[in-house]
Amino acid sequence: MITAPPEIRWGAATALARGPVVAGLDAGSARNAIGMHGGPYGIYSALAVATGVLAESHRPDLTNTQPSATIGPFDSWFDPGKIVTFDPWGHRVADDFAKQREQGVDIRPSIAVTDGQLRMGEIDEAMRRGRLRADGRFLTTTGDIRVTKIAIEPVWWLPGVADRLGLSEGDLREALFRCTDGMYPALIDDPARKVFLPPIGGTSVYLFGAVSRLGEPTTKITCRVHDECSGSDVFGSDICTCRPYLAFGVEEAVRAAQTGGLGVVVYNRKEGRALGEVVKLLVYNARARSVSGDRADAYFDRTERVAGVCDMRFQTLSTDVLHWLGLRRIDRWISMSNIKADAVLDSGIELIRQIAIPDDKIPAHADVEIAAKRAAGYFIDAA
Amino acid sequence: MITAPPEIRWGAATALARGPVVAGLDAGSARNAIGMHGGPYGIYSALAVATGVLAESHRPDLTNTQPSATIGPFDSWFDPGKIVTFDPWGHRVADDFAKQREQGVDIRPSIAVTDGQLRMGEIDEAMRRGRLRADGRFLTTTGDIRVTKIAIEPVWWLPGVADRLGLSEGDLREALFRCTDGMYPALIDDPARKVFLPPIGGTSVYLFGAVSRLGEPTTKITCRVHDECSGSDVFGSDICTCRPYLAFGVEEAVRAAQTGGLGVVVYNRKEGRALGEVVKLLVYNARARSVSGDRADAYFDRTERVAGVCDMRFQTLSTDVLHWLGLRRIDRWISMSNIKADAVLDSGIELIRQIAIPDDKIPAHADVEIAAKRAAGYFIDAA
Repeated sequence: MITAPPEIRWGAATALARGPVVAGLDAGSARNAIGMHGGPYGIYSALAVATGVLAESHRPDLTNTQPSATIGPFDSWFDPGKIVTFDPWGHRVADDFAKQREQGVDIRPSIAVTDGQLRMGEIDEAMRRGRLRADGRFLTTTGDIRVTKIAIEPVWWLPGVADRLGLSEGDLREALFRCTDGMYPALIDDPARKVFLPPIGGTSVYLFGAVSRLGEPTTKITCRVHDECSGSDVFGSDICTCRPYLAFGVEEAVRAAQTGGLGVVVYNRKEGRALGEVVKLLVYNARARSVSGDRADAYFDRTERVAGVCDMRFQTLSTDVLHWLGLRRIDRWISMSNIKADAVLDSGIELIRQIAIPDDKIPAHADVEIAAKRAAGYFIDAA
Repeated sequence: MITAPPEIRWGAATALARGPVVAGLDAGSARNAIGMHGGPYGIYSALAVATGVLAESHRPDLTNTQPSATIGPFDSWFDPGKIVTFDPWGHRVADDFAKQREQGVDIRPSIAVTDGQLRMGEIDEAMRRGRLRADGRFLTTTGDIRVTKIAIEPVWWLPGVADRLGLSEGDLREALFRCTDGMYPALIDDPARKVFLPPIGGTSVYLFGAVSRLGEPTTKITCRVHDECSGSDVFGSDICTCRPYLAFGVEEAVRAAQTGGLGVVVYNRKEGRALGEVVKLLVYNARARSVSGDRADAYFDRTERVAGVCDMRFQTLSTDVLHWLGLRRIDRWISMSNIKADAVLDSGIELIRQIAIPDDKIPAHADVEIAAKRAAGYFIDAA
């Protein structure tokens, strides 16, 4: 019925004024964004359509799928430069755009918010050792951790992403097209479409404590921004500090909840510093076999020889989620990365105290990684 | 120097006869595949080039990056239909195509193989409870688990993928193009390029035991094929059995290694049955809020209402890695999914014994999931 693509005014004061992002499988002529929902999983949708198990005309039934907790809107949502890598209104689609959806426009949520419970061996151990105690609300006697879980898909406002990276929009679009072997000619041919859903992994957020206290200036915030490392996060690989750091972040987040504050753990799909796992394992081999041994001073150099660059995470793109949550100050920042901290500070969030992983949580084989990071000027907790 | 794209003869008897997959950032006119290395991380490479931190002309220095263990070649590599979702020669690029790389062709590894050690809380507990004992070789007294780790990027042989899914190559290419909002016109315009590196997550493999025994018909194999569930695998979310199942698989894999066999744990990036995490959390809400309660008989239905389909994993595409490892028989198959088992059997691998997760490892809140799976005909271990 509606055939013209709705206009998008990024940073507008309401969802309706901003306009919906239309990129569903059945968007048709109402489509106003480049790409597909689901990040990389859009490819599987294509297979599902091809094999006939998914109808291209299927519209998501969003009954009862609405967020389990209210997030925003906060002032930061109305600054078109503060949140540029996902849609701040992405979780409210079922309500904000109910009318447009009824009229047949294929508008889909790009964020979901639900409640849940976690169990982690490291938290069980913290309880056994007396570092954490059950409170019956945020942490039960059986070690169940109550959380609000959020999944966020990438939705790039291209002018904002370009600006964040210090590029012109045209240069960004040209590089995204050329360096991917020509993915999405619309990046070049259709400059009017300024929103791009890239086929990359998104972000998960775990909130610990009373979510209603988000946005209150007095709420004490503990935060860990963690970039995926499947080998350590899932399997406990001992060559790095990733899972120990993540578990330390969760422990601190629970503590924040128990003392009236809020814990925020952000999990970004940026495996191996966004170089991917194949490159990561190639570098492990190069490090292990170096004639001079696996030395801290060669840690970053080995990566650069293989990958051409030692880090592609672009931390400056990772701060959006903190602004989306309305954070203006983080009281306890659980990280030793000065690159992450600088990105957050530059984005206008105050960091009160930076906290590095305690030495007794560093796996024996991760000493090279830690030494290399310290030598490169990463933060060391003096406390 | 070399400007013509090398021909690819999928299933040929040697790497040289098969020909290299050329898809590097600097492939130029030698490019013979559609897409980019690194799956979704190729997008970050584009940002790195755009911002000037990565030179487009950078060639990976592969010194010392070669596999830490020999994998193959096995007979299955020479059957063009057995392995179609990645390049079976992808880990051997540095040696097999050294000459072509010296001549300037940008050929990159799409698989990496390294050695490492894991620590998992569940294995520590299995040792405390006496279910596992240290052997000093595969499992140390401090709970370190020795493994060979493998990362595999997706590299699709399009005629083979189409055949596996029961489609014509043309229909597959058309759907991949159309249902992704026109990603890669080359899928339509350049039918001569038959290899596609899709921007999706790949597969990790963890091998427990003497890798040299791969391919020996007498080697007893224990295998868990696990599809990613970040909420459970990383954070221990209690609504499903994912991490408990994975940990059970690792425990069984260690046991296989200790009894002279080989444990194989495959980890596929197929979050939320390849529907992605946003859809997964939307469904959690719909299940929790249903007026009839979160019931087993509505478990799959709720997913289908939101996503249009309740599973997009296409297990028939997940069997390649088992053939790549030369497996023809799996003695202990750790899974309750009949869909997974059927795919493996159909691909020509014998399953001797299927083993479901023990009841005492099922989290209390995962009862709805398990009941729904049992009702849907999933395997239940009678033992």
